[in-house]
Amino acid sequence: MAAVEFWFEFASTYSYPAAMRVERVAAAASVQVIWRPFLLGPVFGKQGLTDSPFNVYEQKGRYMWRDMARICEGDGLAFNKPSVFPQNGLKAARICLLGMDEGWGPAFARAVYQANFVEGALVSDDGVIADLLSTLKLDVAAILERAYAQDNKDRLKAQTESAWEKGLFGAPSFTVGDELFWGNDRMETAVTWAAKS
Amino acid sequence: MAAVEFWFEFASTYSYPAAMRVERVAAAASVQVIWRPFLLGPVFGKQGLTDSPFNVYEQKGRYMWRDMARICEGDGLAFNKPSVFPQNGLKAARICLLGMDEGWGPAFARAVYQANFVEGALVSDDGVIADLLSTLKLDVAAILERAYAQDNKDRLKAQTESAWEKGLFGAPSFTVGDELFWGNDRMETAVTWAAKS
Repeated sequence: MAAVEFWFEFASTYSYPAAMRVERVAAAASVQVIWRPFLLGPVFGKQGLTDSPFNVYEQKGRYMWRDMARICEGDGLAFNKPSVFPQNGLKAARICLLGMDEGWGPAFARAVYQANFVEGALVSDDGVIADLLSTLKLDVAAILERAYAQDNKDRLKAQTESAWEKGLFGAPSFTVGDELFWGNDRMETAVTWAAKS
Repeated sequence: MAAVEFWFEFASTYSYPAAMRVERVAAAASVQVIWRPFLLGPVFGKQGLTDSPFNVYEQKGRYMWRDMARICEGDGLAFNKPSVFPQNGLKAARICLLGMDEGWGPAFARAVYQANFVEGALVSDDGVIADLLSTLKLDVAAILERAYAQDNKDRLKAQTESAWEKGLFGAPSFTVGDELFWGNDRMETAVTWAAKS
């Protein structure tokens, strides 16, 4: 079955509507989604950025928040501008990476985006994370132990390094073999590319 | 009749496919296109950028050239990566602004993009500019005199200032009243917005 790799980061605004619709868009084209959480911090760092470009470039940032509101309205998604941006998605990314092996990763990812961009929760907060896992009927203590183990930390680091090597510079991104597509608005192009590959 | 303002700069890569399709996309929705040449240099300068973000951020730049090739292929447009990027579009923008008053502006704009992104010509070169105008059966000397007159230079400066005040930070962009849409890939959204306004 044709597949598209979906690269996302929990601090990334446009990754929110992308995560909410990627399975639907891919399924319509009979394409499998491979969810790839990664960290934008190191990827931005390699580009000399110490903050989100939406904070570095203020006018671009103002546009992005308005654009996000329009996109979410169009997609029928709730959206509230978070008081903290960008949030620290490190813990959530480690947990999500583990969840991809265990089948609950996509549902956890969607729950984290909902917490960040709808409910205004701090997704780096241990209590928030525990609540999200509990809502998904998961064993919080057991999952945190596996997610924060060194081998899983190393896997996330390696996946982030792999993102950079594939040419990623932002999120969300999509890859199909060596082809890279950047942005929520390239999702359909990436899925079509995968279907034809 | 509903209208969309199309903001473009001759050095901007994604403005090329946008300029080639904007009339077709707008006409299909019975929307009028108002062509707005402006200069990215001052707009980048206000953001602290002294070069194109595609040069400042190398990995993003590599992606952009591949993405441009894919987009142009999909749109049935020829495309050759120029040896000089970004080119200086100042003279062409002054001429194009004049041409918008006189009806030949859009055709001139498309000719400049063709010269830059297909033929590899330097569009700041006086000979290239004269050839482009001649091909459009225009009186080169008379047009250059009006285009390079102080009042026309001032108009381009004012239009660029107006772009910044409307929130623009890159090109191509589209505005419908106070609503801003950035990028060739937002053209359809902008045109739909205009049609509903």
